[in-house]
Amino acid sequence: MSQKKVVLAYSGGLDTSYCVVYLTRELGLEVHTVIVNSGGFSQEELAGIEKRAYEMGSKRHEVIDVTERFYQQCLRYLLAGNILKNDTYPLSVSAERMFQSLALAEYARENKADYIAHGSTGAGNDQVRFDVAFSVISPNTEILTPIRDLRLSRQQEIEYLQQNGVEMSWEKAKYSINKGIWGTSVGGVETLTSRQGLPESAWPTQLSKHEPQEISITFEQGEPVALNGEQMKPVDLIVALNELAGQYAIGRDTHVGDTILGIKGRVGFEAPAPLILIKGHHLLEKHVLSRWQLLHKDYIAGWYGTLLHEAQYLDPVMRDMEAFLESSQERVSGTVYVSLKPYQFELLGIESQFDMMQSKVATYGEENNAWDSRDAKGFIKIFSNQLRIHSSFNDEN
Amino acid sequence: MSQKKVVLAYSGGLDTSYCVVYLTRELGLEVHTVIVNSGGFSQEELAGIEKRAYEMGSKRHEVIDVTERFYQQCLRYLLAGNILKNDTYPLSVSAERMFQSLALAEYARENKADYIAHGSTGAGNDQVRFDVAFSVISPNTEILTPIRDLRLSRQQEIEYLQQNGVEMSWEKAKYSINKGIWGTSVGGVETLTSRQGLPESAWPTQLSKHEPQEISITFEQGEPVALNGEQMKPVDLIVALNELAGQYAIGRDTHVGDTILGIKGRVGFEAPAPLILIKGHHLLEKHVLSRWQLLHKDYIAGWYGTLLHEAQYLDPVMRDMEAFLESSQERVSGTVYVSLKPYQFELLGIESQFDMMQSKVATYGEENNAWDSRDAKGFIKIFSNQLRIHSSFNDEN
Amino acid sequence: MSQKKVVLAYSGGLDTSYCVVYLTRELGLEVHTVIVNSGGFSQEELAGIEKRAYEMGSKRHEVIDVTERFYQQCLRYLLAGNILKNDTYPLSVSAERMFQSLALAEYARENKADYIAHGSTGAGNDQVRFDVAFSVISPNTEILTPIRDLRLSRQQEIEYLQQNGVEMSWEKAKYSINKGIWGTSVGGVETLTSRQGLPESAWPTQLSKHEPQEISITFEQGEPVALNGEQMKPVDLIVALNELAGQYAIGRDTHVGDTILGIKGRVGFEAPAPLILIKGHHLLEKHVLSRWQLLHKDYIAGWYGTLLHEAQYLDPVMRDMEAFLESSQERVSGTVYVSLKPYQFELLGIESQFDMMQSKVATYGEENNAWDSRDAKGFIKIFSNQLRIHSSFNDEN
Amino acid sequence: MSQKKVVLAYSGGLDTSYCVVYLTRELGLEVHTVIVNSGGFSQEELAGIEKRAYEMGSKRHEVIDVTERFYQQCLRYLLAGNILKNDTYPLSVSAERMFQSLALAEYARENKADYIAHGSTGAGNDQVRFDVAFSVISPNTEILTPIRDLRLSRQQEIEYLQQNGVEMSWEKAKYSINKGIWGTSVGGVETLTSRQGLPESAWPTQLSKHEPQEISITFEQGEPVALNGEQMKPVDLIVALNELAGQYAIGRDTHVGDTILGIKGRVGFEAPAPLILIKGHHLLEKHVLSRWQLLHKDYIAGWYGTLLHEAQYLDPVMRDMEAFLESSQERVSGTVYVSLKPYQFELLGIESQFDMMQSKVATYGEENNAWDSRDAKGFIKIFSNQLRIHSSFNDEN
Repeated sequence: MSQKKVVLAYSGGLDTSYCVVYLTRELGLEVHTVIVNSGGFSQEELAGIEKRAYEMGSKRHEVIDVTERFYQQCLRYLLAGNILKNDTYPLSVSAERMFQSLALAEYARENKADYIAHGSTGAGNDQVRFDVAFSVISPNTEILTPIRDLRLSRQQEIEYLQQNGVEMSWEKAKYSINKGIWGTSVGGVETLTSRQGLPESAWPTQLSKHEPQEISITFEQGEPVALNGEQMKPVDLIVALNELAGQYAIGRDTHVGDTILGIKGRVGFEAPAPLILIKGHHLLEKHVLSRWQLLHKDYIAGWYGTLLHEAQYLDPVMRDMEAFLESSQERVSGTVYVSLKPYQFELLGIESQFDMMQSKVATYGEENNAWDSRDAKGFIKIFSNQLRIHSSFNDEN
Repeated sequence: MSQKKVVLAYSGGLDTSYCVVYLTRELGLEVHTVIVNSGGFSQEELAGIEKRAYEMGSKRHEVIDVTERFYQQCLRYLLAGNILKNDTYPLSVSAERMFQSLALAEYARENKADYIAHGSTGAGNDQVRFDVAFSVISPNTEILTPIRDLRLSRQQEIEYLQQNGVEMSWEKAKYSINKGIWGTSVGGVETLTSRQGLPESAWPTQLSKHEPQEISITFEQGEPVALNGEQMKPVDLIVALNELAGQYAIGRDTHVGDTILGIKGRVGFEAPAPLILIKGHHLLEKHVLSRWQLLHKDYIAGWYGTLLHEAQYLDPVMRDMEAFLESSQERVSGTVYVSLKPYQFELLGIESQFDMMQSKVATYGEENNAWDSRDAKGFIKIFSNQLRIHSSFNDEN
Repeated sequence: MSQKKVVLAYSGGLDTSYCVVYLTRELGLEVHTVIVNSGGFSQEELAGIEKRAYEMGSKRHEVIDVTERFYQQCLRYLLAGNILKNDTYPLSVSAERMFQSLALAEYARENKADYIAHGSTGAGNDQVRFDVAFSVISPNTEILTPIRDLRLSRQQEIEYLQQNGVEMSWEKAKYSINKGIWGTSVGGVETLTSRQGLPESAWPTQLSKHEPQEISITFEQGEPVALNGEQMKPVDLIVALNELAGQYAIGRDTHVGDTILGIKGRVGFEAPAPLILIKGHHLLEKHVLSRWQLLHKDYIAGWYGTLLHEAQYLDPVMRDMEAFLESSQERVSGTVYVSLKPYQFELLGIESQFDMMQSKVATYGEENNAWDSRDAKGFIKIFSNQLRIHSSFNDEN
Repeated sequence: MSQKKVVLAYSGGLDTSYCVVYLTRELGLEVHTVIVNSGGFSQEELAGIEKRAYEMGSKRHEVIDVTERFYQQCLRYLLAGNILKNDTYPLSVSAERMFQSLALAEYARENKADYIAHGSTGAGNDQVRFDVAFSVISPNTEILTPIRDLRLSRQQEIEYLQQNGVEMSWEKAKYSINKGIWGTSVGGVETLTSRQGLPESAWPTQLSKHEPQEISITFEQGEPVALNGEQMKPVDLIVALNELAGQYAIGRDTHVGDTILGIKGRVGFEAPAPLILIKGHHLLEKHVLSRWQLLHKDYIAGWYGTLLHEAQYLDPVMRDMEAFLESSQERVSGTVYVSLKPYQFELLGIESQFDMMQSKVATYGEENNAWDSRDAKGFIKIFSNQLRIHSSFNDEN
């Protein structure tokens, strides 16, 4: 009988390295390590992780790049919806982990794996994203989660690895960092408190440029297509803008939110491109969308973000919301001008062929030919009909 | 027959000064000028306006102070709802003008005025707020609006005043400013475009302090009650915080929004205290409110702001929303720590006896005793039941 | 100089007949009468109206049939959204009048009419639908509304017609009826009160069948495609079902609603097919849509109906909502079984290949293999985490 | 050491009778049986259940009546919100079970029980309501659930009871019935299918009256206070109306809904009073509430019902929603006239001192003095400003 095969989500860290050895030695499985890159890893990092995977005993290591798919199936909707969870967080990790989980599940299904494994603990959100994606996409593949089940300390894991011949130093970083195209999260002793902010030194990207500069971002039907007039693919634009605005240490904040498990969590993040793109896109929308579009988009977008965060990406309602959001972007074309400064940016203004503030019909605050004072009086009279009817029952009237 | 009486909303500017003379001379009315202070005028300014009112021929001039009422009946709900229209604008003028209109209408009703007048044009939002409040609160008092009806140029108004013996210089300010406790609006040639931001010199409050400082704001059931540990009335706290944070030129932005008349308008504003209070209050809420409260508060607050902006403050649904918002603030007590810096502020953290992130039940990201891995697996399994059922009808399964 | 041309919305009634004569004689215009059939008129009725139009002096009479378009661009969304205004009214007239107005406006634009006219008074909703459609679709064509402007009594109109040689009897029906494919409205003395229901005799369709019968309606992606197993086009199915269920006097009710003008109005209606289709479709959806789809569809559908009612069909948000609704219908395929009885119908059940109640994954109320008691305990424990955390701050704990 | 004490939710059925014996014999506990009456049990039924409890070995049996509390803390909000889950189901069992669970949990806490037990299986919603209420209200009392844990068949339970000396016949009813003040649920073989309706004989309340009668229900601030002019307490009115309308077999339907566990379930119910009260109350609201109240109440009410159904009654957002709903009822006073007929009822009309349809300000469809045609034109012109601006960018214009 052939050896059974497990697909393991591998990050190169201690937990998933432990899993490679544990699944091989203790469960007798053929371990296929897979890392899904959604834009957060460089080629050097990926090569290092691959090397380590084989050192741990992986039989086969795969890198799956989902960056373009992540943009097409998720990020462009987050942008279309101007989505910041609790008005703060661009869902950097929540979104990315979902797409990593989906790619892993599909890989396991296609490769007819007997098991699929992840290294998450039982304490956080990630286990939910993994388990949900795995069990929905590949329902007949059993899920293995040694770290969650065994609840070992770091020290116990290191000792186990040593006992199995893995002599490696596993220093715990002072801050745990998760780098992605849509933002980098930062956790540390401070984020376990409610009171303290992260110290300057904790941020992966440090301020390196002080002189303000003005940039322009061009959108075409809601998607960013040019930076400073230079056409680029959205994914490339995001990368370039992260680079550019990161020099100003723009886009840092701390998010406090509800986890899927019902408890509150806190995390720092830096997300220069997402913040600038979302705020710039939103400004453009204020000029080109109708009042009703702006109002109802907020409802849809709020829920899209919430459900994505809570591992519900596969719910069909998400496709319905995407249809709404996509439809809403028909005229969201134009250029947004932004000034980058240390730790902040300023939205200067926009240009758009669909700018409803500059129509030939009427202009705000100016006397114009679209209506006269008699129209205005009639409008307000009828506009207030119900209030006057309602008020007519008050005692004082 | 006695002379008929008109109550005129008087600001001291050219338009309403013209109205005093016009209503007296052309319509033969006894003009009572009234200015409603909702926190934006100093005693000196009010004295100057009173002097001018009498110079124009007012028979009686009244100052009505509604600042405390404005806070109690409006601002505390805007704060409870973290309300920023289109994620930007604290509704500085929209809210204030509504309360000025209400006070005027009540004054006219109580004083049995024959007419009630305002100096707004037919082009903007203010006429709607005045007309709505007047016609609902005092339905039997006819509304007079000479400026809207006559559509005179500034030059024509000045000449009319000169012909009637008013020799005064009426220079048009480069930027039109509306100062209020909940923010100061700034309009100029740039805000008529979509592309240009206001120049540094246009802002009424200039940067005067560079050294960062940390401050604390204490909330009690959603209301700000102490600044840096010193107890004060909310209205006084807002004034003090505007003063303090204004030195850092905090809270500037440009708002693009839909007017009640269906067109888009753009205005600059500076609102240091509102921005810091709203963002600080929101952070505190993320720690002490349930996930469902945060979600549904956003819906209520979004509509509360929209309807207030659109002159619907008197709709009974606003009272229903206020009841919701008030109920939601029961545990919104604690202290928020904020760092003030030039042009920006940073929320550092909070302390609260109701901080759900620091409960004895469970802590995020930590293995804890509230549940074990078996619980987590069961949770996720059932949590994903519907997704798995839905997916089971897909072709690939 | 050639005679100027006016396109008049003509219904054959007294008001619009007056308009033909008035526009011809008093304004010297060449009157083109147009009637838009959205499914409410028979060929005989249309021929009678045409005959009368020419008798009044119309230079050209056109019948525009928009029934199929009405279904494709509106009714199928009303059905997809299960839309009953205030849980009662299928928007029979609101929807129809909008599409009649749009077709008229397009006709006027294409035919380069100098004017476009309707016969509505200034008291109701219809004038808004006409004016909005006309001014948006054909902004450069001036709108004429003699009935609204002149405010004549019926007697005055009749006398004017007689003076102009039109000798015809214009009896006022006891009940004003507006017949359409999506429902027939009935107004009379009773509907002007709040207290009285319409008498049995007022209903256009009388009970003629007592023996219950079971029927089936088959939906394909949300659209009704077969009645009792017989394939038909949706429009034909609606007509046939109105005929069939009308015999049972099904679908009668009285609607009280807010008009666009801010006052309350009341109207009786009978709409057998719309009611059965909407309720049957909704039942099918409960079986095949996810919980989140059902929840968020309600929000979208509620607003779609409200905005359609309020003449906002042309707002781009309606296209966004249609995209959402269309996406949501992907699996709404299956057959609904209905029992027709005098004055009522009963939904018996459904069959669908996507019925989530009958999946292989799990069945309600049965012990099953999808999860065990340990899973359930873990689920509930974590599901109630936040409630327990929140409660832990209560005094009694 | 004294014997440990368990509080058991006891219904008199086989499952909970098994629990009494099991908890006593196998776990050596002192069993206190408690039944919570929320209006569904008669004194005879309660006496029978008490007798059986002691026969099974209960050490102490308590009846807790929560009917009034159930009304005050829940039913009046369900009525204020016109809440029908999925437009169908008055949440009869969902609401009742929650209040039974809360009373049990409080009883256990007050009586310092060592354990608290219920007889639900692991398959349905009830276990969630019990577990949530128990763990939140009495977090330190361990929950015992023998039925869920042991997964015994009826036969196994009966045999166990026989072995322990309980000789009793435990016939399984053809239909499982749960009777409550807010509705009686009915489950049977048909409700396990999607296709079949319940047969006439399955309904507990049979048609016994054919002659239609008109009744009146008087509401005071949203609460039903008089039936046919006779003042009564709301709870008594509900009971009387159930009795009266039940004779007509009114209020039957079948609900298909999403369970908390993510699967779909189906159940028949009869709820004459809830249906008539909700629909009558809603009609009254259409006359006395503002358009905005009606719109936003729907949002709040939909979520209130959903969260109540999903065992979230203790979430603080429910208190916020109750505050909104309570505020909205200020003017919901008046009398609703209803005609009762076999299997159906018809809402005839209402009378209310706050009826906005009958104000002195304006009346629908009538020419009136509230505005003239010039006002109407001005209103519509400005009302359509944004649509015209938006449309001006279209190609055809």
